[in-house]
Amino acid sequence: MSTDLKHIIEAQQFNREWLENELFPLAENMQEVVRLRRSKTLLKKRMISFFYEPSTRTRASFEIAMDMLGGRVVFSTENATQFSSVAKGETLEDTIRVLNRYCPDVIVLRSSNEGDARRAADVSSVPIINAGDGAGQHPTQALLDIYTIYKKLKKIDGISIAMVGDLAKGRTVRSLCYLLGKFKNIEIYFISPKTTRMRDDIKEYLKRHGVSFTEGSDLRKNIHQVDVIYQTRPQTERGTKFDLSEEARKLYTVDEDMLGIIREDAIIMHPFPRNLEITLEVDKDPRAVYLTDQIDSGLFTRMALLKMVICG
Amino acid sequence: MSTDLKHIIEAQQFNREWLENELFPLAENMQEVVRLRRSKTLLKKRMISFFYEPSTRTRASFEIAMDMLGGRVVFSTENATQFSSVAKGETLEDTIRVLNRYCPDVIVLRSSNEGDARRAADVSSVPIINAGDGAGQHPTQALLDIYTIYKKLKKIDGISIAMVGDLAKGRTVRSLCYLLGKFKNIEIYFISPKTTRMRDDIKEYLKRHGVSFTEGSDLRKNIHQVDVIYQTRPQTERGTKFDLSEEARKLYTVDEDMLGIIREDAIIMHPFPRNLEITLEVDKDPRAVYLTDQIDSGLFTRMALLKMVICG
Amino acid sequence: MSTDLKHIIEAQQFNREWLENELFPLAENMQEVVRLRRSKTLLKKRMISFFYEPSTRTRASFEIAMDMLGGRVVFSTENATQFSSVAKGETLEDTIRVLNRYCPDVIVLRSSNEGDARRAADVSSVPIINAGDGAGQHPTQALLDIYTIYKKLKKIDGISIAMVGDLAKGRTVRSLCYLLGKFKNIEIYFISPKTTRMRDDIKEYLKRHGVSFTEGSDLRKNIHQVDVIYQTRPQTERGTKFDLSEEARKLYTVDEDMLGIIREDAIIMHPFPRNLEITLEVDKDPRAVYLTDQIDSGLFTRMALLKMVICG
Repeated sequence: MSTDLKHIIEAQQFNREWLENELFPLAENMQEVVRLRRSKTLLKKRMISFFYEPSTRTRASFEIAMDMLGGRVVFSTENATQFSSVAKGETLEDTIRVLNRYCPDVIVLRSSNEGDARRAADVSSVPIINAGDGAGQHPTQALLDIYTIYKKLKKIDGISIAMVGDLAKGRTVRSLCYLLGKFKNIEIYFISPKTTRMRDDIKEYLKRHGVSFTEGSDLRKNIHQVDVIYQTRPQTERGTKFDLSEEARKLYTVDEDMLGIIREDAIIMHPFPRNLEITLEVDKDPRAVYLTDQIDSGLFTRMALLKMVICG
Repeated sequence: MSTDLKHIIEAQQFNREWLENELFPLAENMQEVVRLRRSKTLLKKRMISFFYEPSTRTRASFEIAMDMLGGRVVFSTENATQFSSVAKGETLEDTIRVLNRYCPDVIVLRSSNEGDARRAADVSSVPIINAGDGAGQHPTQALLDIYTIYKKLKKIDGISIAMVGDLAKGRTVRSLCYLLGKFKNIEIYFISPKTTRMRDDIKEYLKRHGVSFTEGSDLRKNIHQVDVIYQTRPQTERGTKFDLSEEARKLYTVDEDMLGIIREDAIIMHPFPRNLEITLEVDKDPRAVYLTDQIDSGLFTRMALLKMVICG
Repeated sequence: MSTDLKHIIEAQQFNREWLENELFPLAENMQEVVRLRRSKTLLKKRMISFFYEPSTRTRASFEIAMDMLGGRVVFSTENATQFSSVAKGETLEDTIRVLNRYCPDVIVLRSSNEGDARRAADVSSVPIINAGDGAGQHPTQALLDIYTIYKKLKKIDGISIAMVGDLAKGRTVRSLCYLLGKFKNIEIYFISPKTTRMRDDIKEYLKRHGVSFTEGSDLRKNIHQVDVIYQTRPQTERGTKFDLSEEARKLYTVDEDMLGIIREDAIIMHPFPRNLEITLEVDKDPRAVYLTDQIDSGLFTRMALLKMVICG
């Protein structure tokens, strides 16, 4: 599969072999590159960072990943919808075709419209990496999440995971489900208010792939059973309404009390940014990886992906 | 003329000899630089990219041109009107004087006010390149357009060109007329609705320079006669109102039907972004250069100009 | 003190010995680095330029300072409040912790909230440089101001200075007072309308440190006595209301008439941007340093600070 990895568009495009034999080992190597501060792997290679909507963290991690490998970000824009020809009616396809003529080796694209990454890839002879396309996918987040699990637990087959919070609109939990579907004996607990339950398309996908899952609305009931707690933020900017009463929050919040119940060898993840759903006392617990290994994995994974799409 | 080329302010400042003996040969060389991926011509040279208003394509092509020549973009801002001291009442002159102290080798300036590039040049000891000043000029667009014509047709004297669409507010057609006025036996067809006719100042300029032109309102009547079709976009954001009925659009749109009438050796240009005035079926026609040679010429021309103003 | 200089947070943190023995000599050296165009002092070092609110000049001078020393700006954002996870409720602390994982050698932080630089430093293992935190501090401006005085007058002890204009809300005059309090026999004239007088906290600080000061409302009465005229701009965007009548403006404006009264060896400073409080005829006077030495000092000072916090 590595031989035909041209674009990074959606979590579904990757299979288990590629993850285990290509991505994970290469991401592992990148840790050493970062320790040595910089490699020449992508010397003379050029990245265009084209963000139709802002995403500071994602843009930072891609641009720094490129730099770590010795490559150059030759153009970067952080709010192209407001700033560019888009305002004058240019189509995504025309924009991508024009950028292609500037001879980049990769275009990292962030958009607010589902399907844009696929449309861009269809007209681009330069590799496109989807850095999030609206309600669509954010595949590099899913890849860094599964790499984090692999790195910390040394396996993926057989793990149990609680996905908590805004499962209806949270893009990251959806993409992660696609990837978990490639592995064996996975057990998922979807923990959320009724209003933000995981949608049917994912549940059907999981059934088809033999992943067992259960739904609940009190994290405390299941948290002692799982290897991974994957917490998410209410997507209030996309219309999610969360009951923020003390009582309701207790059902979904990872706080100091929860730390006593969570297994010793479990890990606590969060795609960030976080609001109140993980309290600050949790940060220093060694099981909390959202501010350490998970962020690092983002850098290592993106470095690995850049190398793969640019060098083939 | 090359010896005193300090600033790039307006299309009128260039004469035929400079175009033919300086710009075109140097732009031609740049194609090879790009093919070899990077030169050291501008090693250690510094560019400031100062855009008071956004223009993604223009900024990208300048910043990438600088990088291709081995130079560095040491500072870039894409919306200085909103973001900078301008909001606190600073004059353009003060801003340029301050930027001069930071030791750049060139300042690429985009502004929304006609005449700003000239004002900036008046106080700058560092070369200023006008990357568009509102309703004023966009000289590097004019230079890349005429270089594209030269490159594809191998000559400029004696060509016939149809300029189509919003001729009243389109900055690029105006600047191109200035340059064409330097050559012999040019024939121009201005094709537009009555509401967006070419303005009198340009028509008088052309008369003074012996350029013959005619005005019409149906592209189909003249399209078979011309070497160049230069299509433009309605500047709706500047108040242009276009009749968008199917019937009206037929008069000005380059579509598949038109391809049968256009001469075999003609070229179809557009300064981009485009809306609906060139349909997508046209893109693959070899005569359509707006997504290929014309974009490339932008990169080569800007590389050439950077080298000229920085190295003298 | 240089041994424990980790973060640059506020003007108060520096003492006289550090200014005279560390900062000034190093800033002096940087002039030569700039003349030679680029050093390798910070080769392989990485800066993140994180501006929650726009400040074109400050961002430019830091990013160019980093480049002059051979370092790289690996990520830059100019309006993070609008663009980043902030909009989704992320705390400053979480943002800084995440940026820390990307292995920068320094984070230059601009914010609109007083105290943010301190909060950032509290969670950051990477040096933080405060590039302005709202109504709080802008310590690098204060440092460049005092270095400018030292450079031009060859001493700080014993100088007299008129601070003019919006003393209530002007952040730069406040910070400069903190630094002047470290020296001997300083004499300050605060010249302003009654509505924008220097606030009591600074006046008490000056008393405690034995700095003599007087308050007045007519620049013409004192301007002949001082070594330094430090002019400021009305902070109208923060609510300052200035009487802009001709008569009122005469009291505070440095214009051609004033030039006849100012001492031959005095210097005229302004933190910029300026509006009308220094007229354009003054610019060419050799005593006006606001467009020359003061801007240069900003670059040299920031280069020195970057070297100190990164290299220790």
